[in-house]
Amino acid sequence: MQRKKAVVDTKIESAKISKGLLLIHTGIGKGKSTAAFGLLARALGHGMQAVVVQFIKGRSDTGEEAFFKNAANLQWHVMGDGFTWETQNAENDLASARKAWDLVQACLQDETVNLLILDEFTYALKYGWLSIDEVVAALKNRPPMQHVVITGRAAPQALIDVADTVSEVNLLKHAFQAGVQAMPGVEW
Amino acid sequence: MQRKKAVVDTKIESAKISKGLLLIHTGIGKGKSTAAFGLLARALGHGMQAVVVQFIKGRSDTGEEAFFKNAANLQWHVMGDGFTWETQNAENDLASARKAWDLVQACLQDETVNLLILDEFTYALKYGWLSIDEVVAALKNRPPMQHVVITGRAAPQALIDVADTVSEVNLLKHAFQAGVQAMPGVEW
Repeated sequence: MQRKKAVVDTKIESAKISKGLLLIHTGIGKGKSTAAFGLLARALGHGMQAVVVQFIKGRSDTGEEAFFKNAANLQWHVMGDGFTWETQNAENDLASARKAWDLVQACLQDETVNLLILDEFTYALKYGWLSIDEVVAALKNRPPMQHVVITGRAAPQALIDVADTVSEVNLLKHAFQAGVQAMPGVEW
Repeated sequence: MQRKKAVVDTKIESAKISKGLLLIHTGIGKGKSTAAFGLLARALGHGMQAVVVQFIKGRSDTGEEAFFKNAANLQWHVMGDGFTWETQNAENDLASARKAWDLVQACLQDETVNLLILDEFTYALKYGWLSIDEVVAALKNRPPMQHVVITGRAAPQALIDVADTVSEVNLLKHAFQAGVQAMPGVEW
């Protein structure tokens, strides 16, 4: 039996353009942030400079932060105050999001940043803390070879429109449905 | 406006069972292997012992391998000979898959392995190199606290049935569709 590559793979090989990519990981399934952290490892392995900005998470005891914190070429910023249903403090949420966005804007003007990860960024748009027009304009004006990864549920269409690659992670099954708690090393 | 957490998140918090999980990342979208590597970083950050077995990929110049290769508590095995449409050598493919599976079986009996990643494993099932019954039996009999992550397109139903968490990554958009080549740090 002759085995053929899928059409998508043939298309990948014939592509020749080289540019910085905007990638979005959205959907309600598990794997959006972890796929961003996998890309982070990949980029650091190529000697690239990377910045991670976490918009919602407020905790700094995660396995990923512990593992990456000593990596060369990496800045890791935990800018959130926790999920909005935990804080119920709209003013604080807005202030945290604006502060994180100021940091992101500086990175989007810095061509020494090769990879910028905006973790759980879509929630800042969903709750109206940031303007989608302002965000799209800043993304479009970034250095041409800079890669940006945005994660979070329900990415707005205007963001999808300017992205190069968009993955939607769906939940076919989740361990919590069988009563399994968030396991260290898997969920955080 | 009072903000509420989603039902899925409420369920996660009420779950109490602690166990090793079988996670599957399937679908044709981008992010299946990178999500596994993100989990790897997370687990290593918690001091866990991990093993990666790559079933199809034959290259060792990836960013992820370069980044992780010096990590403590990790073994990384590249067992593939490249994709089957490249090799067109059924005997070699079968022999590589069996050799990789022998290694995996040893890990599935070793309780010091906390996380086992079987990257692009589903293809070994798709091409009939391994028996799904044998694979399912070995997964069921593994140490109770061991986490296993399996990646690859078209995970068979029998594998999904025994999994705890299954994410399906769909492709909403991919940079190759606009002629962009595989960029280092993003695709490898």
